[in-house]
Amino acid sequence: MTPELSYIIDTLFIIFAFVLIIFMVPGFAMLEAGIVRTKNVTSVLMMNTMIYAFASFSFVFIGYQIAFGAYGNDDMSKWAFVLFQMAFVGKVINIMSGGVSERARIIPLTFFAVIMAAVLYPLVVNVTWGSNLLDGTILNLSMYDLAGSTVIHSTGGWALLAAIMIIGARKNRYTKTGGVRVIPASNIPLVTLGAFLLWIGWFGFNGGSVGSIASKENADLVALTILNTNTAGLSGAIVAGALMLLKYKKIDITMVLNGALGGLVSITAGPDLYNIYQPILIGAIGGILVVFAVPMFDKFKLDDPVGALSVHLINGIWGTLAVGIFAANPDEGITLMGQIKGIIVVAIFAFVSSYVVLFIINKISPLRISNDEELEGLDVNECGVEAYPEFKRAF
Amino acid sequence: MTPELSYIIDTLFIIFAFVLIIFMVPGFAMLEAGIVRTKNVTSVLMMNTMIYAFASFSFVFIGYQIAFGAYGNDDMSKWAFVLFQMAFVGKVINIMSGGVSERARIIPLTFFAVIMAAVLYPLVVNVTWGSNLLDGTILNLSMYDLAGSTVIHSTGGWALLAAIMIIGARKNRYTKTGGVRVIPASNIPLVTLGAFLLWIGWFGFNGGSVGSIASKENADLVALTILNTNTAGLSGAIVAGALMLLKYKKIDITMVLNGALGGLVSITAGPDLYNIYQPILIGAIGGILVVFAVPMFDKFKLDDPVGALSVHLINGIWGTLAVGIFAANPDEGITLMGQIKGIIVVAIFAFVSSYVVLFIINKISPLRISNDEELEGLDVNECGVEAYPEFKRAF
Amino acid sequence: MTPELSYIIDTLFIIFAFVLIIFMVPGFAMLEAGIVRTKNVTSVLMMNTMIYAFASFSFVFIGYQIAFGAYGNDDMSKWAFVLFQMAFVGKVINIMSGGVSERARIIPLTFFAVIMAAVLYPLVVNVTWGSNLLDGTILNLSMYDLAGSTVIHSTGGWALLAAIMIIGARKNRYTKTGGVRVIPASNIPLVTLGAFLLWIGWFGFNGGSVGSIASKENADLVALTILNTNTAGLSGAIVAGALMLLKYKKIDITMVLNGALGGLVSITAGPDLYNIYQPILIGAIGGILVVFAVPMFDKFKLDDPVGALSVHLINGIWGTLAVGIFAANPDEGITLMGQIKGIIVVAIFAFVSSYVVLFIINKISPLRISNDEELEGLDVNECGVEAYPEFKRAF
Repeated sequence: MTPELSYIIDTLFIIFAFVLIIFMVPGFAMLEAGIVRTKNVTSVLMMNTMIYAFASFSFVFIGYQIAFGAYGNDDMSKWAFVLFQMAFVGKVINIMSGGVSERARIIPLTFFAVIMAAVLYPLVVNVTWGSNLLDGTILNLSMYDLAGSTVIHSTGGWALLAAIMIIGARKNRYTKTGGVRVIPASNIPLVTLGAFLLWIGWFGFNGGSVGSIASKENADLVALTILNTNTAGLSGAIVAGALMLLKYKKIDITMVLNGALGGLVSITAGPDLYNIYQPILIGAIGGILVVFAVPMFDKFKLDDPVGALSVHLINGIWGTLAVGIFAANPDEGITLMGQIKGIIVVAIFAFVSSYVVLFIINKISPLRISNDEELEGLDVNECGVEAYPEFKRAF
Repeated sequence: MTPELSYIIDTLFIIFAFVLIIFMVPGFAMLEAGIVRTKNVTSVLMMNTMIYAFASFSFVFIGYQIAFGAYGNDDMSKWAFVLFQMAFVGKVINIMSGGVSERARIIPLTFFAVIMAAVLYPLVVNVTWGSNLLDGTILNLSMYDLAGSTVIHSTGGWALLAAIMIIGARKNRYTKTGGVRVIPASNIPLVTLGAFLLWIGWFGFNGGSVGSIASKENADLVALTILNTNTAGLSGAIVAGALMLLKYKKIDITMVLNGALGGLVSITAGPDLYNIYQPILIGAIGGILVVFAVPMFDKFKLDDPVGALSVHLINGIWGTLAVGIFAANPDEGITLMGQIKGIIVVAIFAFVSSYVVLFIINKISPLRISNDEELEGLDVNECGVEAYPEFKRAF
Repeated sequence: MTPELSYIIDTLFIIFAFVLIIFMVPGFAMLEAGIVRTKNVTSVLMMNTMIYAFASFSFVFIGYQIAFGAYGNDDMSKWAFVLFQMAFVGKVINIMSGGVSERARIIPLTFFAVIMAAVLYPLVVNVTWGSNLLDGTILNLSMYDLAGSTVIHSTGGWALLAAIMIIGARKNRYTKTGGVRVIPASNIPLVTLGAFLLWIGWFGFNGGSVGSIASKENADLVALTILNTNTAGLSGAIVAGALMLLKYKKIDITMVLNGALGGLVSITAGPDLYNIYQPILIGAIGGILVVFAVPMFDKFKLDDPVGALSVHLINGIWGTLAVGIFAANPDEGITLMGQIKGIIVVAIFAFVSSYVVLFIINKISPLRISNDEELEGLDVNECGVEAYPEFKRAF
């Protein structure tokens, strides 16, 4: 295996992984378009499109340098590496935007997407996967997080928590007596399509994060990573489905799919470190956490239409802890304490910085649409285009 | 080409093929969701999700060993091989579940999916592609079936036939005077999307089944396999469309797409054995068989909403025979008699074992929903969630 | 890097690129199905299916030889090369068919698809990428067009212009007083899904057109090509969105997505020739051109429901010029004059030949549906199948 050959094979491999992740763009878009009410569907599709356009652009031309320094890579084409890293950034912001859909305005959120992609997320990457500004300081992190349970999913989740605290719940979501009004998903095929496109994207996300396939060991590691990623998703879906059946006698498909996604998030920190059986348990806990966290966030009136706090924030934390529990290896610097420290440092930075930036944006351009516009729907008011203009509404 | 390099390239190749096949998960889900009536859409999406979760899990941790013995592979990462084989199993069960949609219950079918994935299908694989329990007996098979015209498609088709015999037709599908009531597909874009995702998945299914791309000969064989696979699909679509035009003056798109799928099934046994022209004829016959088999099964009151018996069972048989007709090669053990014997042995095993298992499951947990629930739709009764709650129904 | 190894890696690479392009089949189908009115959705899906079936078939068995001569390739599997080239042809015809949807009949357009795929497009390829019939004549072209800004997009665009001139606008599209009646897209999620599938396909289209990844230089070139392709799409979307906001205060998502596609078309002639910053400008101009060209074509009463003239024809020309402006390299034979000559020669051939063929087809089998059938919708009249039979129409 000459360096040139390894360079070629890994460039092809990372381009393949990059493309898989890009399937998560329509993946998130379809999932969210299926979950929200028909009057807000165009708006979430627009938001997803804006995120891909603005966040990717901001990351390639600004954020990348903050995260990694100058463009450059000896092991594969530097442009393949830029593409792969670019594919990540939109996900962080998708997690956030999905959770405030049906009441947040597109333009101020797009501003936030630019700042997140150009500065905030790159700083998180810098201190975890990148050139590490914290090196030599007491905050220097030793967290193991292969594909971003914390770096991607929790970061997005903390930003979402900040956004929900500032923007508030959808009108009439919570009754005065403390009840939760169920708002059914408007298009279940789109939810399902979106969830499976995300699942497929995860193979690229986690598999590609191994970074190289150009040795026998790495080829095994990539394949193991993808197998473990998938197993955790399967396990999360199975357990979420079983719990729904026990609790409600009926199996809500959105919960099963969120259980799968929770399992996928939970494995993301260390899919390369586990044997093939550990992901069963890790993903199962991921599925359980989703089923219990969704009503819990509603109790706190943290209104999150797509369940992103449960799927991404809670399981991002769980997945990062799981590495410390199941794969601690002090010789390699992987310890439970190191994982916890990483979770906390990223949490504080991501939450506080997102809160501050969103707070300021909100003063300049309100993040929330007016009550009348919310009632009428964001599509007409923000986009001027209805998603399904020819279908008569049942209510 | 060192063994290590070949190992790396084939691991990458098989992971690529695996990912393509996983696109068949949303592929089947969208195809079926588009074909059934809106009141049953969530139910088929749930069923598809359950199949992916339970069948994949059962195969990875139980079925694989029955099929192939201990995890292991010298030519590529063993985990890549496990993933690739895992991707197949759901398809067998999708074929079955699709054909009994709109009246079969999710939970007993999920039980069947587990048994099929853990035991029945692995036994079929064992005696065809695997370690071969029948070796040394009179039943020892010499069938050539590269990517599963028989192993996948007919096996699923026979299970479906058993299921339809036990579960029966949808209410009011057949009139007392012997007529067939047309039940139109509810969402043609989803049908089309699903069919093309399946088509794309087929490139991975058949191309990956060559098993290696790491020599000049194999690279040619993989490319030829994909070309031939595609050609048979094109040919099936063209011929089905032409027949529809001749018979009905109008071209029903679901029949054209099923013609394409029939062509794809028919080439699956030997896409690597043909020259580039033979698939034109093989796929054309596949398309013709679909057009004629669909009304034939209705004559026998075998109610199959998605046409799976025609696409998968009939063309699975045809495709396996086609190898014996167009590519017999006694020196390599490929004979028409060997193909026929394989078809028959698998048919008897798959049909009888599926029938017995489904019969027993049916006694424990009825496979069929009640008449009232069927009339109201499975979505409300099985899932508690409507697929399109905001769209007013035209009837 | 032995020739055998290079052969294997490039075969895998081109198969990967081929598969990505095939995602453009459902991509175009979903985009168009989402844009047209519900009464014409099945018809455009049928048209897209017919194009894939007939055009691919015609190209593989006839057109390829006209373009390139006998099947053969020393650098990779000849069948992989055939598949890759086959994947292109449908796009040319999709561009044309999309722009005459809602009033053109399926069967005569399918005739045109066969002639285009078997003869017209192969002749364009012959004189640009192929064996070059014009070699030695005064018309011999030196146009640089890596992945077909002219060869694919403008060719399709010129054919569309000819088709619109013969077929005319949709009934009631233009009022007697010169106004344009807005016909809203019927399904925005499908439009979005389609656009992103096209975007993903573009990575294979342009990346694969580099032709080889099997050297360090080529690996870099492939990755740079994909990065630049993506950047131009981002830039086109951003600029189109910003312009819409300035002009109309609301951001029409279909225009943003068309802006992205315009950017993607504009980069397609030379994504491998630019640095990473030039695509920002090239794509931005692509987005601007879309925003201004769409109303311009309406002024000329050239009715194009999907905006294909603006996206593909205008930007195909712009993208080919851009190579001459930003990447002229007389030593390599790349000059602005050479680009202009190529644009003109292809324009004349594509427009005139398409016009003549469509004119003749129109005499034999009218391209346009009757007024009554158009009013009722093509689905009922051409396909006998409604796209969404259960959804009650709002009007």
